[in-house]
Amino acid sequence: MPLSERKLIDRIRQVSGEGARLGHGIGDDCAVVDLPNGHEALVTTDFSLEGIHFRREWHTPDSVGHRCLARGLSDIAAMGGEPHAAFLSLALPRKLPQRWVDQFFAGFLKLAKSYGVQLAGGDIAESPTGILADIVVLGSVPKRKAVLRSGAHVGDFLYVTGTLGDSVATLELLRAGKRPGTASHQRHFYPDPRLKVGGYLREKKLASAMIDTSDGLSVDLQHICDESGVGAVVYAGSLPRLPGPDGLKLALHGGEDYELLFTAAQRVKVPTAIAGVGVTRIGEIVSERDVRVAGADGRMQRLKQAGWEHFGLKIRQISAGEIQ
Amino acid sequence: MPLSERKLIDRIRQVSGEGARLGHGIGDDCAVVDLPNGHEALVTTDFSLEGIHFRREWHTPDSVGHRCLARGLSDIAAMGGEPHAAFLSLALPRKLPQRWVDQFFAGFLKLAKSYGVQLAGGDIAESPTGILADIVVLGSVPKRKAVLRSGAHVGDFLYVTGTLGDSVATLELLRAGKRPGTASHQRHFYPDPRLKVGGYLREKKLASAMIDTSDGLSVDLQHICDESGVGAVVYAGSLPRLPGPDGLKLALHGGEDYELLFTAAQRVKVPTAIAGVGVTRIGEIVSERDVRVAGADGRMQRLKQAGWEHFGLKIRQISAGEIQ
Repeated sequence: MPLSERKLIDRIRQVSGEGARLGHGIGDDCAVVDLPNGHEALVTTDFSLEGIHFRREWHTPDSVGHRCLARGLSDIAAMGGEPHAAFLSLALPRKLPQRWVDQFFAGFLKLAKSYGVQLAGGDIAESPTGILADIVVLGSVPKRKAVLRSGAHVGDFLYVTGTLGDSVATLELLRAGKRPGTASHQRHFYPDPRLKVGGYLREKKLASAMIDTSDGLSVDLQHICDESGVGAVVYAGSLPRLPGPDGLKLALHGGEDYELLFTAAQRVKVPTAIAGVGVTRIGEIVSERDVRVAGADGRMQRLKQAGWEHFGLKIRQISAGEIQ
Repeated sequence: MPLSERKLIDRIRQVSGEGARLGHGIGDDCAVVDLPNGHEALVTTDFSLEGIHFRREWHTPDSVGHRCLARGLSDIAAMGGEPHAAFLSLALPRKLPQRWVDQFFAGFLKLAKSYGVQLAGGDIAESPTGILADIVVLGSVPKRKAVLRSGAHVGDFLYVTGTLGDSVATLELLRAGKRPGTASHQRHFYPDPRLKVGGYLREKKLASAMIDTSDGLSVDLQHICDESGVGAVVYAGSLPRLPGPDGLKLALHGGEDYELLFTAAQRVKVPTAIAGVGVTRIGEIVSERDVRVAGADGRMQRLKQAGWEHFGLKIRQISAGEIQ
C-alpha cells in the first residue's frame, strides 16, 4: 500500500529539492518557473499507462519512471529546446507497494537530475485499476527559434540520430517470454532523450524540421510531411538498424526509440556524429506528397503508416493521441 | 463510442483555433507559448476523475469540462497570475458516446474563451474504467510578484471572496437524490475562477499570502499557516455562508468553492468588493501556530482539518494530492 497522499507529497518534496529556475519549492497553488531571457515556453504532456506503455512484469519501476520522463524530454529535444521543470500526475492503485513508488521516483529523478530538470509539481490520486502517469515538461527555446515539424522543403535531406527498431525488438523478446540481457536492450528500458543533439541542431541552424521517433519512422515522417506540405523518399539501404530479416520492418514501424528525425537543406553540412550520437542520412524530401521507400534495387514502394503491434495495440494508436 | 484519436485530435484542432501567444497551432512535439516580457511562468496540474471529482449522473458533460478547467484557472488566480494556455490529457472509456466528449469540450472551451486561454495540447488514451482528465494550465506573473502561500505575517487580517459552502451544499442535495435548481447551485456546476480579483490583489500589492479554497477553509487556511509559519483565528460570525444549522460546518469544511482566501496587512485598505465579487474579513493571523475559530460568545475552538465527505471520500483526501 502506498503512503498517504500527504506523506507521499512530503517525501517528493524532500527528494526533489529546489531548482535554480524555480521561484520557490513545491507547495503552492502553482509552480513558478523563471525562463531564460528572450525565450519562449515549451510545454509537452504524455500519458504513461500500465498495460499500454509498460507492464509491471516486464518493466522495473525505475525503468517506468525513467521512460515516463524521457518521453517528455524527447519532445523538448525535438524542438531544439532546453527542459527546466517536470510535473507528474500519478493515479496509483491502493494495493501498489510503496517500494514500487519509491523506485519509480528513483528512476524518474535520476534522469531529471542528469538533465538539470526540476520536479516542480503534479497531482496524486487513487486509481481504480492500473498505474497511470501523466508527465508534463516545461522547457524553453530562444524566441521564434523552435525547430518545428513544418519547416521541411523539397530537396532537403532526411536524417536520423542513433539507430531505429531497438526498442520494439526488445518488446518482441519480452512478448516471446525471453529475458533481455544485452546492452542494446537497455535502450528500451532507459532511452536517452537526444537533448544535446536537438540543441546543437537548433543552435547551429542545421535542421529545417524535426520530430522525435516516438511512434515509428513511418508515422513520424508522415507528420513532418503533413505539416510541411511535402513528401519523402526513404533509402531502405541506409537505415541504421538491427541486422536480420525483421530489421527493416522494425526500423520502419517500430516506435519508442526516441531518436531525432530531421531535415536539413542539401548545402548544410551535417556532422556524422553529434554529442557522441551517430547521425545518418536516410532519405530526401520530395514534392510528391507520399512517403515512399526506395529499395536497394531502386524500386519504390509506398510506406504505409502501419505501426508495430505491441501490448496488443498498434503503436500508431497509442501515441497518435498527442495533440501538442 | 468516441471518435478515433486522430479524428478527435483533428476536431480539437479545429475548435481550439490559434492563440495570440501561441507560436503555432496544435500539431508539433511541444506547444510554444510566448510569455509576456518580464514575466515568470506559472504551471498548475489537476486531475478530474470520474467518481471522485464528478459523477456522470450528477454532472452534465459541459459542467465537467468547465469544472476541469476552472480548477486550473483558480490556481493561477491564487498566485495573482494571468492564464495563457491549457493542456488536456484525457483517458476515455471505449463505450463513451462521442456526444459526451463534444459537450465536455464545449464547456471547457467556453470557459477558456471567456478568459482568453488557448487549448494548446494534451494527450488522449483509452481508459479501462472511468473518465480521467488531467488539466495543465500555463500562466505567467511579473517576475518575483507571485502571491505565495508563505507571505502571511502575524497581525495580518484574513479575507475571503464570495461565499463559502455553496458547492458542497449542492453536492449534499445531489446525494439526497434531490435536483438542484436555484442559481446558487450553479456555483457548483460552473464555478467562476477569481482571476480578476487575484490579479487586482497582486497588482495593487494588497495581499501578503493567497490560496484558493479548493479543499475547504479548514484545510486551505492550514496550508497558508504551515507555509508562513503562523497561526490564525477565524471569526465564526463573520463567515459569508449559507443560512441554517449546517451553514457554519459547510463554510468551514466544504471544498470546491474556488474562492480566494488571502491575508493583508492591517494598514492595507481592502475593498469590500473587487470586480463585482464581495470580499469579507473573516479573521486574523496570530503567532500561536494553531487554527482556531472564535464563536459569537468569544469562545475559541481549535479548527480541525476535517474536510467534508462527499463521493464517499473526504475532500481533504481528494485534493491534498496537489504537489505544486
